[in-house]
Amino acid sequence: MGNTAIGIKVRNITISNESPQVCVPLVSETEEALVAELKNILSRTSLPDLIEWRVDFFADIQKTDSVLSCLKTLRPILKEIPLIFTIRAEEERGEIIPLNHQGKVELLKRVIQSRDVDILDFELLHTESFIKEIREISSEYGVKLILSYHNFDETPSTAFILKKLHESESLGADLAKLAVMPNDKADVLKLLNATLEANAVINIPLITMSMGGYGSLSRMIGSIFGSAVTFAKGDNSSAPGQIPIEELKAVMNIVDRHCK
Amino acid sequence: MGNTAIGIKVRNITISNESPQVCVPLVSETEEALVAELKNILSRTSLPDLIEWRVDFFADIQKTDSVLSCLKTLRPILKEIPLIFTIRAEEERGEIIPLNHQGKVELLKRVIQSRDVDILDFELLHTESFIKEIREISSEYGVKLILSYHNFDETPSTAFILKKLHESESLGADLAKLAVMPNDKADVLKLLNATLEANAVINIPLITMSMGGYGSLSRMIGSIFGSAVTFAKGDNSSAPGQIPIEELKAVMNIVDRHCK
Repeated sequence: MGNTAIGIKVRNITISNESPQVCVPLVSETEEALVAELKNILSRTSLPDLIEWRVDFFADIQKTDSVLSCLKTLRPILKEIPLIFTIRAEEERGEIIPLNHQGKVELLKRVIQSRDVDILDFELLHTESFIKEIREISSEYGVKLILSYHNFDETPSTAFILKKLHESESLGADLAKLAVMPNDKADVLKLLNATLEANAVINIPLITMSMGGYGSLSRMIGSIFGSAVTFAKGDNSSAPGQIPIEELKAVMNIVDRHCK
Repeated sequence: MGNTAIGIKVRNITISNESPQVCVPLVSETEEALVAELKNILSRTSLPDLIEWRVDFFADIQKTDSVLSCLKTLRPILKEIPLIFTIRAEEERGEIIPLNHQGKVELLKRVIQSRDVDILDFELLHTESFIKEIREISSEYGVKLILSYHNFDETPSTAFILKKLHESESLGADLAKLAVMPNDKADVLKLLNATLEANAVINIPLITMSMGGYGSLSRMIGSIFGSAVTFAKGDNSSAPGQIPIEELKAVMNIVDRHCK
């Protein structure tokens, strides 16, 4: 404990507070467009370490078979890159989808059972019983679980940030994610400082970020303070403040080399 | 006031909290070596906006004529790049030199009168009467004054940092400089936060940095929080944590473009 290395292995990578990984989102609406988006991302000079499919953007999300078939198509294109499967909740700025929480849990179960995803992202806002259901089945099938909190309005207090990250850990998450919006530059420093404090007391890898323009700084330097994954723009961005992967990796390379 | 643009014009550049400038030090011991060092710096792909001559490294510092003659040699090579003249005090990790404070003030006066320097760096540790003497004559000859504070042991409290920057302003400095050593990563965030706070209440441009490995981060992103000048390594570095100018400018370019 206390800023020591904490990592989880997913396929060929280790997500840890010692070796930051870069994730790029897929946000297309159809299988055809998703394949094209993924192929474009993989043809760039900087490759992501992880890919997240933001399934709330998928037009056929209510057709479980279409989701499963799309996963079967994406999997071989990804090769060994781990896939995060995320249906971002409308309450946390996901797209509006024709599934209620129960419907979402049913879809996630089928997706887990397909073994075509490596990591699920599920929001802390769900009921504890839904979270436990997802945790149990994901453990059974060897799928890692991110429990996440997003706030697009403000950066809560350091105590609240720590509370949310603790909550993810105590509910059994493999990774705790928190994304908040800064209202000024001091909020970006607050998020970084809270990440540093959380790292000293929480025993799972953390994924934290400050969003928007000012927050883009945290996407570039957050790993120094213990954020294990940062999200970059590939073909598209999925949240405010993501920057192109080439620029992100250029900055991270220089910062990581000197800042120690 | 309050994070608005505050700038001072020196030759063709404006040093302000809105447009960060990069300064590279000269640390050679002889005129010949200084000329070579400067020419090397100016032949690199990334040019500095400012050059600082760290005169405490100069072997003939006790011979005023040698110092003045060296300035006459350097000036045309610099073209329009402003020159900072610094005899870093031994108490703040400058080289050991055969001049006492009085001798240093006498040398600085002659240098100011030569009009071959644009900016002087003088430490706050000097007596108020020495500082006033230097301030008066530098104003008379149109030379800008940095009043500086360095701490190689620790990062003092935010209140102390603000006090030192205020002190520089109230003693009539054109620029207030503060360089401190972090003992952990939180100290780097503390320095950045203090810079942001100082910017809201101090009406001269600030030059702040956290030193050493962790502190190198502040050299790359400090301008976001209101530091107007950052020091990079050209041929040599003059303080711990300076990184090569090419890398510094690459990071600053990406950070400044996104972080707003």
